[in-house]
Order: sequence, then structure tokens, then C-alpha cells
Amino acid sequence: RYGYFGKDKLEHVKLFVCNIEGCLTNGQVYLSANGEELISFNIKDSVGIKMLQDQGVEVVLTSCSDCPIQKLMARKMGCLLQQNEPDKLKLVESLMKERNLTWNEVAYLGYDEPDVKCLNLAGISGVPPDALGVALKSAKYTCRNPAGEGAVRELAEHILLLKEKARSKSNQDRIDRSTF
Amino acid sequence: RYGYFGKDKLEHVKLFVCNIEGCLTNGQVYLSANGEELISFNIKDSVGIKMLQDQGVEVVLTSCSDCPIQKLMARKMGCLLQQNEPDKLKLVESLMKERNLTWNEVAYLGYDEPDVKCLNLAGISGVPPDALGVALKSAKYTCRNPAGEGAVRELAEHILLLKEKARSKSNQDRIDRSTF
Amino acid sequence: RYGYFGKDKLEHVKLFVCNIEGCLTNGQVYLSANGEELISFNIKDSVGIKMLQDQGVEVVLTSCSDCPIQKLMARKMGCLLQQNEPDKLKLVESLMKERNLTWNEVAYLGYDEPDVKCLNLAGISGVPPDALGVALKSAKYTCRNPAGEGAVRELAEHILLLKEKARSKSNQDRIDRSTF
Amino acid sequence: RYGYFGKDKLEHVKLFVCNIEGCLTNGQVYLSANGEELISFNIKDSVGIKMLQDQGVEVVLTSCSDCPIQKLMARKMGCLLQQNEPDKLKLVESLMKERNLTWNEVAYLGYDEPDVKCLNLAGISGVPPDALGVALKSAKYTCRNPAGEGAVRELAEHILLLKEKARSKSNQDRIDRSTF
Repeated sequence: RYGYFGKDKLEHVKLFVCNIEGCLTNGQVYLSANGEELISFNIKDSVGIKMLQDQGVEVVLTSCSDCPIQKLMARKMGCLLQQNEPDKLKLVESLMKERNLTWNEVAYLGYDEPDVKCLNLAGISGVPPDALGVALKSAKYTCRNPAGEGAVRELAEHILLLKEKARSKSNQDRIDRSTF
Repeated sequence: RYGYFGKDKLEHVKLFVCNIEGCLTNGQVYLSANGEELISFNIKDSVGIKMLQDQGVEVVLTSCSDCPIQKLMARKMGCLLQQNEPDKLKLVESLMKERNLTWNEVAYLGYDEPDVKCLNLAGISGVPPDALGVALKSAKYTCRNPAGEGAVRELAEHILLLKEKARSKSNQDRIDRSTF
Repeated sequence: RYGYFGKDKLEHVKLFVCNIEGCLTNGQVYLSANGEELISFNIKDSVGIKMLQDQGVEVVLTSCSDCPIQKLMARKMGCLLQQNEPDKLKLVESLMKERNLTWNEVAYLGYDEPDVKCLNLAGISGVPPDALGVALKSAKYTCRNPAGEGAVRELAEHILLLKEKARSKSNQDRIDRSTF
Repeated sequence: RYGYFGKDKLEHVKLFVCNIEGCLTNGQVYLSANGEELISFNIKDSVGIKMLQDQGVEVVLTSCSDCPIQKLMARKMGCLLQQNEPDKLKLVESLMKERNLTWNEVAYLGYDEPDVKCLNLAGISGVPPDALGVALKSAKYTCRNPAGEGAVRELAEHILLLKEKARSKSNQDRIDRSTF
């Protein structure tokens, strides 16, 4: 039964790929005269990442830049970080191959033109409300919370809700089958 | 007369428990490459805390993390700080026991799932408008001012107004009784 | 003719008293673990202060705290700074006495309860839209731009417009009188 | 045919002059007690500048101040920086003369009174939605994204779209002419 396998796949979302700029951060960079930089994230979002990890979803952070603060941020959140890769499709396909996953098992949060292909392919895909036009059109889910202020948390809760639904459906199916 | 004691309890709100992330701050953490962090609060909120303390309400700040900046923030505001305690209910009940208080004498400001039980039990409970769904549903009062930008001040004024009302009611009751 | 002198007074606004927290800044204080603090202002507002100074209006900054960053900020903007004075009425009356001014020659921007008396008395008085209830009710002008993001500039332009109007009216009056 | 040359000019926008304060940044300056300053920009905007440069449009940043952080910011973005010049018209005309350009080949993003003349003259001119009244009235295009949070990117995309349109129109014209 196809419907069953479809739901079952959702239960098994295994990988959440999230862009740092414009998703986990609002893209704002604070600069001082001596060249020191600051970027910010929100506790809501880091809690969302933790919630996914606790439910067995791996979270990988991506970025087109090689900003050293992002390294620190990824380490704090216990996430693998993939920097300096403008070709997001190649990046995600390589992550999927290493983990033996299909697109249905991948969730993706992006905000700009380089994210469009992955937003179209991923089983669950989202953008913050302040994403750029092309990305807004490609995502299956538009968050209400802005980038850097809850968008990651919101998609995380959406993923966990779908996993929960698929799990109860799957349990229901097992009960149904065992009663006959 | 029950109504009288009910009002009287409000006059005697003795403890205001306030979460730091998502209530006193907006949850934003600024990070530099050398690992230095910044978090922010608003003067409106620290004035609100001072107003409560001046009226005899103890303010206790709570947090799930062990961020050292929060220690500094609590010291600046003259507040007891309880960090690293995910079980908020246990935390508040322990504070209440030490102070010999009932839930009616406690005001609580939270924003996320771990705050739900306390929001349901506290005599006065509030959330910022940008709180998470489960907390929004449990709080008796939803602030108009966002977390980190006036939510604490707003709940503080609400508490002081209720104390003021209860005090004039109580005075009125004493006058009524003395005239008979 | 009273109307004439009334307008003439407006032309001679000589002093603009502006609270720092909640007016020139948004009241946000950024704190690091080593105790360093940051506060912010907007270039629009510092340009507004410069415009007033260029037109002969003295700008005095006030604050209830003794924050050292405010000293730096006042120096950058070429303003006298009056810190640590909770009694704003006493403070402004003392400034007026030294300069031999009446309330009609004073403009005032405040945001909280301690500003209420001055907001009621000053010839021109304003609050940012995010000011506290009691102050909002007392001010003659509510800015559209938020505290720390253009409220000072907006009131500055309002003051300069009124000065300009009063000046042309006064010139017109002189022409009218000279033609008879 | 005049219409043809008009479109052709748009294809050849060669210079984008952009004010830093109030356009590339939101004008906010963060100040610490030891005098260190921070200003911020958004990755969206620096990507927009890169997109223009990749399409052969030179981007020049201007400022009335001599803030050293702006020098760093301009270097990071590979832009010429013109500081300390209050006369924007003179500045742009001098840039145009050096590059042998007409106003039709210039795009301009400003936000305040000193930008008004250039906003009136430039072939493409824009302001952020939070620009000051006089500038808002002079610009041909009002961005939806605020200063420092996408206004530059938005005008960049607008410029690139017009270039693209002019290019296809020009190709079409060549095809039309070759068929007769």
C-alpha cells in the first residue's frame, strides 16, 4: 500500500539540512573597527535543533562563506558544518549518499537562489517569511517566525509533528493488521 | 468571606519568578570568533523589576542554561538566579517551600514548554506575545510588549495594579467593618 | 497682541532636553561575560541633534543612571549630559534658571513616569510610540519613529518646522506693520 | 529611434552609488565604554553587491562620516569608498566624469536630504521604506526591505532585471532589423 509507505518515510526523516545565513541567523553581521565580527542566533532555534537531535534527526548546517564564528556556533549546537560550498544540491546529495538516504528522508531550510533545487526535492522544505522571491516560491512550507528568530524552531516542530503523526498511523496500521 | 481572602492574597504577591531567555531577554545570543558572547536586556524591564522589589515583591530569575552573562545580569538587578534547572515546577515549589508561600502568592513569566505547569498554577502568570504555542495557551495574561523589550515591565505593572486594587479593597473592607 | 507673542516664543525654542534611555536609545543594553556593555544610537538621531545645534537650539541629554557609555555618546554629539537625577522637573527648572528661559522655550522628549511633569509643562513635548502609558498621555506629540530609531530626529524636525513657521509669521508681521 | 536608445541605456547601467548609513546599514551604531564601535550589514545586501559586480556594475559606497569600520566594510565588499563628502551631487558628478558616464547610466540609493539631487537625476534611484520624507519623495523606487536588511539587495535585483529586459529588447531589435 503506497500511502502507508509514504507516511512511513515521514516518520523516518533522518537529516535536516539548514542554511546558517538567512535561516539560523538573520544574516546580520556586526563589525568593529579592529575587524572583530559578531553574528547572532536565538535560543528558541538552538532548542529546536536539540529537540530534533533528541528524536534521532541529524542536523547539518551549511554556508556559502567560511566565517569562523559559524564553526563555533555549529560546535555549540553539536552539528556538522559544511562551509564554502555554493553548490547546495551537490552538497546534500553527497550527505545523502554517505548516509544512504532518499530525498523523502531529508528536510531542508533555505532562503536564497542557491537553495531552490534542494527546496524542490526535499521531503519537507521550508523558508523564513523574509526569504528571497525564488526561494519563497520553491518551499513547501513558509515559516511565520523570521530568520534568526524562531524559523528553525518552527520547522523543527513541524518535522516532529509529522514524525509523530506517521508513527501513530504506523502503529494503527500494525494494530489493524494484527486484528485480522 | 472567601472573596475577601481571595483579594487579600493578591495584595500579598510575594514572589515573581521570571525566565531569562524568551522573557527578560529576547533569546538572541551574539557570538564572536573568539567565543565572546553578548546578550541584551531592556532598561524598561530592569526598571520594572526595581518597581516590584521596592513594593516588597522578591524577583527570582530562572534559566535552563548556565550562561555566565546571566549571573552578571542577575547581580546588576539584585535578583536571585536559579540556573541549570530544567524542572521548573520543582524549582518554584522549592522556592515556595523555603518562603512558606502558596501558588496564589506567586507570579510567573515563561515562554516555552517547560514553563507550562507553573503558568497553570501561579496566581498571576504571563507570556510575551512571541512565546511558543503551548506556553501561550497556559498563561493567564499575554503581554503586548515582546520578550526582552518590555514584557517584564508590563507584567510588573499588572502585578502592582492588582496589589493596589486589593489594598484599597482591603482598606475599604476595614472601614466597612469599623462603621458597624 | 497675545497670538503674536505666542508664535514669537516658538521661534525662540532655545533648549531641547532629551532622555537617553527610551528616547535617544531603545533602552537595550548588551552585556558580555566580562562585564563590558554596549548601547546603540541611530545616525538619523545624531544628525537631528546636529540640525538643532546648527539652528541655535542647545541639546541637553538626561539619564537616571550613571552609565559611562552615555558620557561618550554625549561627547560625540556635543551635548551637555545630566546623569543620576531622578527628579527631572528639578533638573529642567535648574537648566532653565541658568539660561533664563521659560517653559515655552523648552522642548522635551521623555518616555516614562519621571518625565510626566516636564512633558506637561514644556512648550513642545514628545514621546516615542513605544513610551509607557503615563508618558504617552502627557506628551503633546507622539513620534511615529521608535525610540533609538528616529524619534529624536522626528521631534527635531518638528521643532525646526515650528521655528520656521514662527519666523515667517514674525517677518510677515513686521512687513504688515511697516506698510501702515 | 529614441525609445530604443532609452532602453539601451538601461542595459548599460555602469555605476551604482549607495549610501552606507540608512541604506547599506540601518544607521545603528553600537558603542562600548572604552569607545569601541560596531555597525552591522546584512549578508543579503553584500550578496546583492556581488551580483552587481559580477554583471559588470561598479558599486561605490558613500558616507558623510569618516567611520573606520566603513573602510573595513567597503574592503570586504570590494567597493570603492568615498567618505566625508557632504556634497553628494559633486561627488557623483566627479565619479561620472572619471568614468565618462551619463546620469542614465547611474543607479543611486539614498535616504536623507543630501541625497535628494542625486535621487532626482539618476536613471534608477531608490530609498528604503524608512528613509526621511524629502528623500522618499524624490526616489523613483521605494524598497520594501528596510535599510540594512535587504534594501540594497532589492535595488540590485531591480537593476539586474532592467538590464536583462533591455538586453532581450536590444537582441529583439537586432533580430527585427536583420529580418528586413
